[in-house]
Amino acid sequence: MDKLTHFNDQNRAKMVDVTDKDVTSRIAQATGKITMHPETLNRIHEGKIKKGDVLAVAQIAGIMAAKQTSQMIPMCHLIPLTGVDIKFTDNDQDTITITTIVKTKHVTGVEIEALLAAQTALLTIYDMCKAIDRGMVITDVHLVEKDGGKSGHFVYQEQ
Amino acid sequence: MDKLTHFNDQNRAKMVDVTDKDVTSRIAQATGKITMHPETLNRIHEGKIKKGDVLAVAQIAGIMAAKQTSQMIPMCHLIPLTGVDIKFTDNDQDTITITTIVKTKHVTGVEIEALLAAQTALLTIYDMCKAIDRGMVITDVHLVEKDGGKSGHFVYQEQ
Amino acid sequence: MDKLTHFNDQNRAKMVDVTDKDVTSRIAQATGKITMHPETLNRIHEGKIKKGDVLAVAQIAGIMAAKQTSQMIPMCHLIPLTGVDIKFTDNDQDTITITTIVKTKHVTGVEIEALLAAQTALLTIYDMCKAIDRGMVITDVHLVEKDGGKSGHFVYQEQ
Amino acid sequence: MDKLTHFNDQNRAKMVDVTDKDVTSRIAQATGKITMHPETLNRIHEGKIKKGDVLAVAQIAGIMAAKQTSQMIPMCHLIPLTGVDIKFTDNDQDTITITTIVKTKHVTGVEIEALLAAQTALLTIYDMCKAIDRGMVITDVHLVEKDGGKSGHFVYQEQ
Amino acid sequence: MDKLTHFNDQNRAKMVDVTDKDVTSRIAQATGKITMHPETLNRIHEGKIKKGDVLAVAQIAGIMAAKQTSQMIPMCHLIPLTGVDIKFTDNDQDTITITTIVKTKHVTGVEIEALLAAQTALLTIYDMCKAIDRGMVITDVHLVEKDGGKSGHFVYQEQ
Amino acid sequence: MDKLTHFNDQNRAKMVDVTDKDVTSRIAQATGKITMHPETLNRIHEGKIKKGDVLAVAQIAGIMAAKQTSQMIPMCHLIPLTGVDIKFTDNDQDTITITTIVKTKHVTGVEIEALLAAQTALLTIYDMCKAIDRGMVITDVHLVEKDGGKSGHFVYQEQ
Repeated sequence: MDKLTHFNDQNRAKMVDVTDKDVTSRIAQATGKITMHPETLNRIHEGKIKKGDVLAVAQIAGIMAAKQTSQMIPMCHLIPLTGVDIKFTDNDQDTITITTIVKTKHVTGVEIEALLAAQTALLTIYDMCKAIDRGMVITDVHLVEKDGGKSGHFVYQEQ
Repeated sequence: MDKLTHFNDQNRAKMVDVTDKDVTSRIAQATGKITMHPETLNRIHEGKIKKGDVLAVAQIAGIMAAKQTSQMIPMCHLIPLTGVDIKFTDNDQDTITITTIVKTKHVTGVEIEALLAAQTALLTIYDMCKAIDRGMVITDVHLVEKDGGKSGHFVYQEQ
Repeated sequence: MDKLTHFNDQNRAKMVDVTDKDVTSRIAQATGKITMHPETLNRIHEGKIKKGDVLAVAQIAGIMAAKQTSQMIPMCHLIPLTGVDIKFTDNDQDTITITTIVKTKHVTGVEIEALLAAQTALLTIYDMCKAIDRGMVITDVHLVEKDGGKSGHFVYQEQ
Repeated sequence: MDKLTHFNDQNRAKMVDVTDKDVTSRIAQATGKITMHPETLNRIHEGKIKKGDVLAVAQIAGIMAAKQTSQMIPMCHLIPLTGVDIKFTDNDQDTITITTIVKTKHVTGVEIEALLAAQTALLTIYDMCKAIDRGMVITDVHLVEKDGGKSGHFVYQEQ
Repeated sequence: MDKLTHFNDQNRAKMVDVTDKDVTSRIAQATGKITMHPETLNRIHEGKIKKGDVLAVAQIAGIMAAKQTSQMIPMCHLIPLTGVDIKFTDNDQDTITITTIVKTKHVTGVEIEALLAAQTALLTIYDMCKAIDRGMVITDVHLVEKDGGKSGHFVYQEQ
Repeated sequence: MDKLTHFNDQNRAKMVDVTDKDVTSRIAQATGKITMHPETLNRIHEGKIKKGDVLAVAQIAGIMAAKQTSQMIPMCHLIPLTGVDIKFTDNDQDTITITTIVKTKHVTGVEIEALLAAQTALLTIYDMCKAIDRGMVITDVHLVEKDGGKSGHFVYQEQ
């Protein structure tokens, strides 16, 4: 294994130098879940139809968060993203699963952007529903796959 | 159970009206975990001593994130926070656990601030270590306890 | 009429001193319109039902913009808002009208917040539909009414 | 007419994928007006000479806003702008007209940046003068012309 | 002397808990200088009259920076400022001196806000003039005086 | 000497048009100092070892500030930075010196980014230590060297 790359010779954090890396197409996909009381998921389902769409708000929060990554995560490079998409599925019981896909054509990857989009969208669901369910849990947030750049293709392996 | 409070009579999202709520002391405590390869945790331990402190960066990211909550989570009110603290423990194997505490004296609570601080700090750990371990998982992010305001005291119950 | 209040004795801009003003409940309501090709409004109507809700995105953009006012408008004070709501109506032909309502309990008013929310929501409609209609016009953006504070009640008078 | 491009197959908003679009020089010009009481325009004129330049503040607000576009308008891509300029004219009676020009060399256009710069500068004029005139109206904000990119040249046609 | 207050019992940074401090009127005044080639100061003087006012841009940058303090300085509390003013003087040779005054009525002081406003305005002067003078130096930035709060009155003493 | 480049033909500020400048590797190095009571420097030294690392917080603040430059300095272009590093030395008496290095591959330089990183890191030191020493002075902030772009190589000359 290599040394952690984010520290300088004074052992303090730096933004890694990517000046000479190649511009390539890069893509990252992340996922995460939020578990809740079954009644809470019912409300979200109903809302989509007639009372107000919780997931529409979460969607937008996630997309906007991806664009804020370099301001939230201290050592992240600012990356002009070329695409962000987010999808939700649920198990019809107590869990919503999110999948985020982020793309760029740049010198460094967008894994953190995809993860931050997922986290922020899930937290927005929590915020929108907290008046009826403060016990929701955000869980299993991880990278699913990424491609592009020197480190190449990565696919998450369940442990 | 009540109606979801974040929607108006056009069934679109609104920022809930808290104009007439009382200013009270409020506190929220959140937690979350990141699991990783045991070698990654070794590196973080070593780094603290002599190569660069991953958790110091995560700490600051979490505190700064708490202050950004109203810009990240669409329906959150801006709340002037009066205190933020973050602590880390680990199981000496493969998991770091974070605890965040956020305080204010305001008309609405700081649960989302505490959760966003936790998520952001954990994602910063991921970012700092991703060159050696892209399979890390952020998990079990939830509110631990909150107090203050009309909805009173909440303590998380393990399901 | 009084002197413009935003300039100091060097004739350069300042943030007006409101230290000794009273904290009172304040409310502001603003409005604005976007005119478009009738086919564009058709698409927005259809989208709401089955293809994607343009106005849901505009709604969220407007609410988030209200919270960003002090960072966008140089001499505005940061004001912790206590409520933001936005509604849309249309004339079933070529025009969408927005109404925004912003509230606070603070030492200065929220007129600019209400206007910025309206402008930003309307521009978001433009952005979402520009691929089919670049000739849309944002128009008639003005304060409708405000109350609270020393300057008291204001109601917009059509000229 | 094409489908609205900002929605995914779940009918929720996405940031359009521009990964494979060409980098080209792009320019957009927008305009807008603010109408006011004639005495208000007098004050702005006088101020320029000796009491404080309202339009200098509006100018800067507009330029800074152009740089914030991707944080204000949810589905906008972050675009590194290569130039922003703003000019004001007035009719010597009751109306100030703004023209904004924004440039980039990127994979997507800067129409929204030009429009947001115009809107924000006009709202800054409102803010600076609201103590003497709350009835000002921001109106006729639209794209004047844009060039570059696949959709080519657009010139606004008065209806 | 007391312990540094910004660290927790894990010896990592925290945002100091001010929940129980009193809301009082607070004021801070800061200063700083930028030294330059005499010809550069000439240009700034000329510009004010007919070619473009460097200091007007610096003024606005300083005021806006004061409002961004809690996002720039990690452990700073967000404070709703109630007034910001900035003045410039120069020695007619090679040095511009800035004075900033920031006010609030809050639980903690605004020293950092006043200092950040000064620094940012001075750096804006540098930016506006760097095409003709890259050797400018920003110097002697310090607190002049502050009042309000438990630590009381402070006046800077030349060493 | 050339005309100040940041003003348009209405003598108001503009963002300089760099659309047709070449993309080249660019680097800038800046420096600055903070002087303090000798006891304050002692505390910072001690803290590094066992009580909390002031400079680790300053380091992160500086790096994050570099990424915020275009939002803080009105006429600065947004530049995707490719590297930021910060180092501290001290004279073992009363002064800490900072050196910042910023890199990009872009159409315009990163001098302001390097200077803003230095200023912000120094102000963070002030903030972290102000409870024990409000008389600290930030001084001698200047560009050390820059390279890349049409204006070529610059090395600061002590006057």
